[in-house]
Amino acid sequence: MFEQLGLIGCGLMGGSFALALKRAGLVKRVVGYSKSPSTTERARQMGVIDVEAPSALLAVSGADIVLLAVPVAATEATFKAIKHLVTPQTLIMDVGSTKRDVVDAARRVLREHVGSFVPAHPITGKEVAGVEHADPDLYAGKQVILTPIERTLTAHLQRATEVWSALGCNVLQMSPESHDAAFAAVSHLPHLIAFAMINGISSQDKGRDYLSLAGPGFRDFTRIAASDPKVWRDIMIANKEELLAQSKIFQRTLQAMELMIASGNGDALEDLIGQASETRAHWRMASSRPHK
Amino acid sequence: MFEQLGLIGCGLMGGSFALALKRAGLVKRVVGYSKSPSTTERARQMGVIDVEAPSALLAVSGADIVLLAVPVAATEATFKAIKHLVTPQTLIMDVGSTKRDVVDAARRVLREHVGSFVPAHPITGKEVAGVEHADPDLYAGKQVILTPIERTLTAHLQRATEVWSALGCNVLQMSPESHDAAFAAVSHLPHLIAFAMINGISSQDKGRDYLSLAGPGFRDFTRIAASDPKVWRDIMIANKEELLAQSKIFQRTLQAMELMIASGNGDALEDLIGQASETRAHWRMASSRPHK
Repeated sequence: MFEQLGLIGCGLMGGSFALALKRAGLVKRVVGYSKSPSTTERARQMGVIDVEAPSALLAVSGADIVLLAVPVAATEATFKAIKHLVTPQTLIMDVGSTKRDVVDAARRVLREHVGSFVPAHPITGKEVAGVEHADPDLYAGKQVILTPIERTLTAHLQRATEVWSALGCNVLQMSPESHDAAFAAVSHLPHLIAFAMINGISSQDKGRDYLSLAGPGFRDFTRIAASDPKVWRDIMIANKEELLAQSKIFQRTLQAMELMIASGNGDALEDLIGQASETRAHWRMASSRPHK
Repeated sequence: MFEQLGLIGCGLMGGSFALALKRAGLVKRVVGYSKSPSTTERARQMGVIDVEAPSALLAVSGADIVLLAVPVAATEATFKAIKHLVTPQTLIMDVGSTKRDVVDAARRVLREHVGSFVPAHPITGKEVAGVEHADPDLYAGKQVILTPIERTLTAHLQRATEVWSALGCNVLQMSPESHDAAFAAVSHLPHLIAFAMINGISSQDKGRDYLSLAGPGFRDFTRIAASDPKVWRDIMIANKEELLAQSKIFQRTLQAMELMIASGNGDALEDLIGQASETRAHWRMASSRPHK
């Protein structure tokens, strides 16, 4: 049980964490700060937070657990804003989709207190942003990846694992580097492709007509294209090497299939489609396995 | 009310049509044929068809409505198999995802009876194939595109419109060429991308690990990658010019975004992501509008 959650960033991810923590009876009081005062006010009106803090530093004041839920490029500035009130007793976590840049920022800014920071990436989200979409069930049944470094304090890592487990999450650990390589492939690249495909269609003279005809396959394929621009700008730039490497592999595979289509090589094309179809048909989202 | 549906291809699309037509009380008897006798037998056991026909021709014998629900490359051979029993009174439709190739096959084979054929593309589907997934609700609330040619008989076009409307579909008309251009962009390209992306990931040494970490965004983005290999092989080769043109536009857009990522041009990247996000957030699937 925590006395006070200091929530920095009261949007979808942060707001949902606060609601989940409250519902689980794990926190007495949530003090929240958002860059936009209207967001902070809205979060209080909705009962997502109990107290509005006028600064990130004041949200941390008195907190024994702190969650950073800001676009990843804002992580370093946020650490700077709060570092004077960070103690070895404070558990600090984030929810960023990239981990190397976040860990680097923590090392640079938190210095001797870097052990209080447990980098976290919950594998969940919605294609709509903002505190009005905050949902206490957002994390339930999902995976959370923790990427501790050698200086992370074991006690904090343990508490972080307990908190996410109490919210119904399946908690995994890996290095920041392995995390960023994996999510470039299965998350950052799909987002980049979805954004590019939508823009490619709407740039055409008949793009609007085409979009009006699209059906349920298109709907699901492009759902992630509605994601938050600032959040995804930061992720793509923070993880650019891995993302560009994955995009290159993807384009090479795409171009190999294009050649088969152009030459009418139906057998080879059917083989490749068959491989993809079988892989996808047997794939199961890890989080849908019963939580142990 | 029809006396007899001759169903050629008792898979997901054909089986669902038979079930929907029966439930709506629009047909007295369904005679079905599939290339695989075990499929035809299964369809009869499930009540999807009433009588198993030993050939496509015998499925058409006595039918006043015929549905071709076969991979598009099998259309011409199917027309050849049935043409001797086609009369001006028979309404023939298909459910293929490409229309120019199907219309060309109808002209070549049906000749003076081509007016009986009303090319149809229902914008629906599932990522699982086979009669065991046939569903009388598959077409309800979805769009159906009819692509008549100048020789299509008005009476048949009218009856086709009535049949699909009676199944709860929103019926549109366009030329085969416009249809194929639009669906290259909003359906065939997304499928090609999804197949290529899955194969690109699973070709990597750590591909299996990466896939095991993927979350709900990946799940929805790649749902269509589990689609039927033969069906999609045919669609991609049948519509290759339009598909490859769309793939080129997509790759150009993707590469422009890659340059912004590589150079760390966050403002330009955010603008492009913002355009895509706004377009997608405002997009609504036509079929989700109340049916008039």
